[in-house]
Amino acid sequence: MSPEDISSYVKFVQKLATAAGAETLPKFRNLASVENKKDGGGFDPVTVADRAAEDAIRALIKKTYPDHGILGEERGTEEGVSAFTWVIDPIDGTRSFITGIPTWGTLIALNDGDRPVVGLMDQPYLDEQYVGAPGRATMTRRSETRALAVSNQKDIHDAVFSTTTPEMFATPEKKEVYETITSTVRLNRFGLDSYAYCLLASGLIDLVVESGLAPYDIQALIPIVEGAGGRVTTWTGSDAQNGGDVVAAATPELLQAALTILGPASEA
Amino acid sequence: MSPEDISSYVKFVQKLATAAGAETLPKFRNLASVENKKDGGGFDPVTVADRAAEDAIRALIKKTYPDHGILGEERGTEEGVSAFTWVIDPIDGTRSFITGIPTWGTLIALNDGDRPVVGLMDQPYLDEQYVGAPGRATMTRRSETRALAVSNQKDIHDAVFSTTTPEMFATPEKKEVYETITSTVRLNRFGLDSYAYCLLASGLIDLVVESGLAPYDIQALIPIVEGAGGRVTTWTGSDAQNGGDVVAAATPELLQAALTILGPASEA
Repeated sequence: MSPEDISSYVKFVQKLATAAGAETLPKFRNLASVENKKDGGGFDPVTVADRAAEDAIRALIKKTYPDHGILGEERGTEEGVSAFTWVIDPIDGTRSFITGIPTWGTLIALNDGDRPVVGLMDQPYLDEQYVGAPGRATMTRRSETRALAVSNQKDIHDAVFSTTTPEMFATPEKKEVYETITSTVRLNRFGLDSYAYCLLASGLIDLVVESGLAPYDIQALIPIVEGAGGRVTTWTGSDAQNGGDVVAAATPELLQAALTILGPASEA
Repeated sequence: MSPEDISSYVKFVQKLATAAGAETLPKFRNLASVENKKDGGGFDPVTVADRAAEDAIRALIKKTYPDHGILGEERGTEEGVSAFTWVIDPIDGTRSFITGIPTWGTLIALNDGDRPVVGLMDQPYLDEQYVGAPGRATMTRRSETRALAVSNQKDIHDAVFSTTTPEMFATPEKKEVYETITSTVRLNRFGLDSYAYCLLASGLIDLVVESGLAPYDIQALIPIVEGAGGRVTTWTGSDAQNGGDVVAAATPELLQAALTILGPASEA
């Protein structure tokens, strides 16, 4: 993919985020307002917001890139005739969305058939937009864009660690992994969903470990973390784009230290 | 205290928040910038930010209310000659502050010698300011102020629960309390510090349980939660202004259900 292609896809993904934000932000902390708009199937308000955002994104993709495929959390898969697929989670962090915590986000990736090449995480309440592409990652807030870079943290004992919830570690082997990591690192942070990967790309968190992710939970975040110089793999060190057991680390040394702990508990 | 007195204290506490924000916000996600300004004692950058904010607050209090006492996290107690004491935590949620998570806050309470009557939580990155006073609580964002009200949640099985970290539940009895509550409620949210109480006052979280709090961790939040119609007590149902084991609940019924679980594990 040429640099010109990348640039135009980045512009397009930002347009998608704007369309999604127009659906999500007015409903944030205001879910009672959509109670009466349930679309007949008995869905909860957050599902209504989720679907409205995904539909807005899908409509723009179909208009602009009609031969691209789409994989979304809410509306499933539509095969394309080209190799390209857009991978969408309209509201990642729905538990934060419904409880008023401003770290949910809209995730959109463009996968070229081999891997996610462009990724975006948009948080409209914070007015923060994280974008990753080959060789670069940026964060835009209040029209100001700055380059992101991961930390230099190599030592797991000094690392800032994050995972969304201890409940992710469901098997006895995973519970043991959770105990080992949270007692080894310097600081634990919980509850962040995709925002943790954005803070890792920003050099503020060093290590993220999660389990049970779907492809649309992680694909948008891979270009952001890698574009900032970090690494994302499964717990056995392989390609993480299909989700499952995922680890993101600021440095290869920190990744290796985490994989040593995680590998034996992997379900892959 | 007259309504006029309350109003002037509310205006003053907002002035204090502005002064604190001028010290904290420029250092948020930018702690490397204060590395070289360590004040000789080997303090970490967040301590430097914390102290600068508390010093700014103290200077204004001394100028405006020279006979009031001050109790702050960073600089200890200064006795006043009047019954009034300002109770300050310049950066509540320092772990969020250093890891880039925008849910830390500046906490300031005015205690009339009997109880905290005015309380403020200010989050300058979000531009959110929560203020509580007898009979009312408000949130101001982007110059827009709206009244806060807790939820009507009475059933602990349907409640949204929050605690800052499982690590707060340190004794075997408290670990059991943690397991019971997190497995009883509908949804658990972690990592929020004082922001959880503000979301409770906003009707978005129903129950907060914490342990090991200092007076400056909780006093500012009591008028906010109570002003929004909620309740704050210790785990045995008594006055929470001295900190320790604390519970905040949206309704008396929910508080009672929580106290039944919490009471036996209380250290008070």
